[in-house]
Amino acid sequence: MIELTRRATFSSSHYYWNDEWTAEKNEQVFGRCARRNGHGHNYTLEVTVAGEPDPVTGFVVDLKWLKDVMEREVLSAYDHRHLNLEVPEFAKAIPTTENIAIAAWKRLAAVIAQGADGATGARLSRVRVYETPEIFAEYRGEA
Amino acid sequence: MIELTRRATFSSSHYYWNDEWTAEKNEQVFGRCARRNGHGHNYTLEVTVAGEPDPVTGFVVDLKWLKDVMEREVLSAYDHRHLNLEVPEFAKAIPTTENIAIAAWKRLAAVIAQGADGATGARLSRVRVYETPEIFAEYRGEA
Amino acid sequence: MIELTRRATFSSSHYYWNDEWTAEKNEQVFGRCARRNGHGHNYTLEVTVAGEPDPVTGFVVDLKWLKDVMEREVLSAYDHRHLNLEVPEFAKAIPTTENIAIAAWKRLAAVIAQGADGATGARLSRVRVYETPEIFAEYRGEA
Amino acid sequence: MIELTRRATFSSSHYYWNDEWTAEKNEQVFGRCARRNGHGHNYTLEVTVAGEPDPVTGFVVDLKWLKDVMEREVLSAYDHRHLNLEVPEFAKAIPTTENIAIAAWKRLAAVIAQGADGATGARLSRVRVYETPEIFAEYRGEA
Amino acid sequence: MIELTRRATFSSSHYYWNDEWTAEKNEQVFGRCARRNGHGHNYTLEVTVAGEPDPVTGFVVDLKWLKDVMEREVLSAYDHRHLNLEVPEFAKAIPTTENIAIAAWKRLAAVIAQGADGATGARLSRVRVYETPEIFAEYRGEA
Amino acid sequence: MIELTRRATFSSSHYYWNDEWTAEKNEQVFGRCARRNGHGHNYTLEVTVAGEPDPVTGFVVDLKWLKDVMEREVLSAYDHRHLNLEVPEFAKAIPTTENIAIAAWKRLAAVIAQGADGATGARLSRVRVYETPEIFAEYRGEA
Repeated sequence: MIELTRRATFSSSHYYWNDEWTAEKNEQVFGRCARRNGHGHNYTLEVTVAGEPDPVTGFVVDLKWLKDVMEREVLSAYDHRHLNLEVPEFAKAIPTTENIAIAAWKRLAAVIAQGADGATGARLSRVRVYETPEIFAEYRGEA
Repeated sequence: MIELTRRATFSSSHYYWNDEWTAEKNEQVFGRCARRNGHGHNYTLEVTVAGEPDPVTGFVVDLKWLKDVMEREVLSAYDHRHLNLEVPEFAKAIPTTENIAIAAWKRLAAVIAQGADGATGARLSRVRVYETPEIFAEYRGEA
Repeated sequence: MIELTRRATFSSSHYYWNDEWTAEKNEQVFGRCARRNGHGHNYTLEVTVAGEPDPVTGFVVDLKWLKDVMEREVLSAYDHRHLNLEVPEFAKAIPTTENIAIAAWKRLAAVIAQGADGATGARLSRVRVYETPEIFAEYRGEA
Repeated sequence: MIELTRRATFSSSHYYWNDEWTAEKNEQVFGRCARRNGHGHNYTLEVTVAGEPDPVTGFVVDLKWLKDVMEREVLSAYDHRHLNLEVPEFAKAIPTTENIAIAAWKRLAAVIAQGADGATGARLSRVRVYETPEIFAEYRGEA
Repeated sequence: MIELTRRATFSSSHYYWNDEWTAEKNEQVFGRCARRNGHGHNYTLEVTVAGEPDPVTGFVVDLKWLKDVMEREVLSAYDHRHLNLEVPEFAKAIPTTENIAIAAWKRLAAVIAQGADGATGARLSRVRVYETPEIFAEYRGEA
Repeated sequence: MIELTRRATFSSSHYYWNDEWTAEKNEQVFGRCARRNGHGHNYTLEVTVAGEPDPVTGFVVDLKWLKDVMEREVLSAYDHRHLNLEVPEFAKAIPTTENIAIAAWKRLAAVIAQGADGATGARLSRVRVYETPEIFAEYRGEA
């Protein structure tokens, strides 16, 4: 078994806000992240698939295909978007780095398991999301 | 003469929009950057001062003082803000990387010329702003 | 379960020296690292906590709190210090990258388990220390 | 147990080509990577060893020794070489990032297990190879 | 006047060889770079244009247009190619980092001066080419 | 004319201290940098030479020769050293980033002007020293 990883970036806006709290409570807990005009980041999405290299191609998965999957399933929905206002899974869940990593996993896992032609031996093994070079979340699915 | 540079980062939202154009024209020229909910970036601000090292301290300027100036004059206004909606100089000028670099120069030049104690020999010589690691603008003031 | 990581940097001096050896033996084993005036590095400390995102905040831990913990427990003791001469745990143990990672773990594990308010569900899961961008040690505690 | 990692770089040429396929099939599957004059990369090799720090030196392994092993076992064979034409293990196996990581593991595992003096407690635990900063493969050996 | 820079990468093979020299002379001067199977790099091309921001768009040039120019004029010719064997300007001139920077300048200068619609106020002011993160050449045209 | 740049790193200790001041004054001006046990950094030295590519080799200078010059003239004196205590030019001048850049220039300029064989057309045009990735000084010699 070997793991193959590809990175991509997306630039999005977000804010942290819990609708069930008062403005004061939101500001107290989330500080400047609670400002309602939003702020943004250059996120890095790092997707890892695990499998055996195909003996004919040497590929765990075709990296061109993986790039297309990442763009179609995640970047087209997140890039140059306001995560809270335009991405369904963040209508309620706050788009923290942790929640973005889990959401990207959910968008990718089944598509990667299915593969380019309906039956790949590879599976999604890890999603890492960097909000900045100093902060990242990593998710490996449920055990 | 020697140049001393310090970097800092800020995370902001923005969009590209010219109020004198139709929505169609804005979308045609600015593409996905014209989406009105905004998107965002981790910007890097790189401030360069030029001068002679003080023979007593070895400093062109005190880097702690420069950090405070950058935070007070630029980051406190830009960081975790929506540039179009919350920063006065971008009420009309579109916050492109070019315009952000020029605006940061205008915020910094006089303060750095004045120095910590009203008369420094150093001057602002360059402002560079990275919107992403792949795109940056650099301004050296008017000749 | 998800992992959330934060990075910070510190700049320290150190040397490699075993008091039970002769100077010749120290120089033979440790080479230029044995020079007694010391040399230094910009270290990067990477702290990973594991847990479930709080359904109300979306946080595994509050990153501002984690930053404060890292500064109070590790950086205030290591940054701009000579590790051998000023940090108790390196009075005897040589401050190799391996030993620094283990020492940082010991400083952080209980404080992170206790959390901001005495009972967090998150735990320290990994400490990584970079001595340079080319060399790093990673510790996950005792099994 | 702690893990210690060292990075090194090598610059090589390669192409993707399966001799049992027609040129058309190779071009269809491998695209521009199938061009027979080859193209190249600055690869990064990241080697991780696992063990206990020696109580006398604080080392899992001597990093100078590890550097020499990496140069002798991998870099001297791969760096400034055409992987398909000059490296035996890629005469048949296509030098994808996945296959390079597995090949580097095979070159390193026994030498690292043997150690500097015939019996080290450390073992190779991970090899990661970056083809670009955006693409990498990671291998941990067979379970 | 302000400068706007965009980066892109390409992966190529090359070797250093002067046809008028013996093999011995080539190996003596160029060392391992003279091996005729070639080796390769992930190059970074950094293109800087100088001009005034358009008061209507805030752009010195449209970065999407600049990306297209860089891909059409340089990357389509250099990326995933063997520079000596497939790029006309390196049939005789050795593809050193210096010569690649000069060649990229020649490919770009007139196209950028002409602009998207036949008359831009911006001009190419700098080309920088990184062969590795440690080595780069920078060209600003003839005075 | 074209500029060719090479980077190298060195790891050193230093402190900021003016012998003509009291300890209180030193602590007031230099803060934690005044601690007498010293602290350290991974410095990056970036050396730029300017000239015309040799029409026979395509080189402004031979990069292997430049690497050797940097190691012999600067790194052998600075790397794994305490700058204040072991490097003559910092016996009096405080080893700030500015002063290190000027000192490295003085060590390199004549040697580079002389070249590998006593008469090169290239000259040192710039020295940049990074103390951290966020702070650097750049020197271009006296006009």
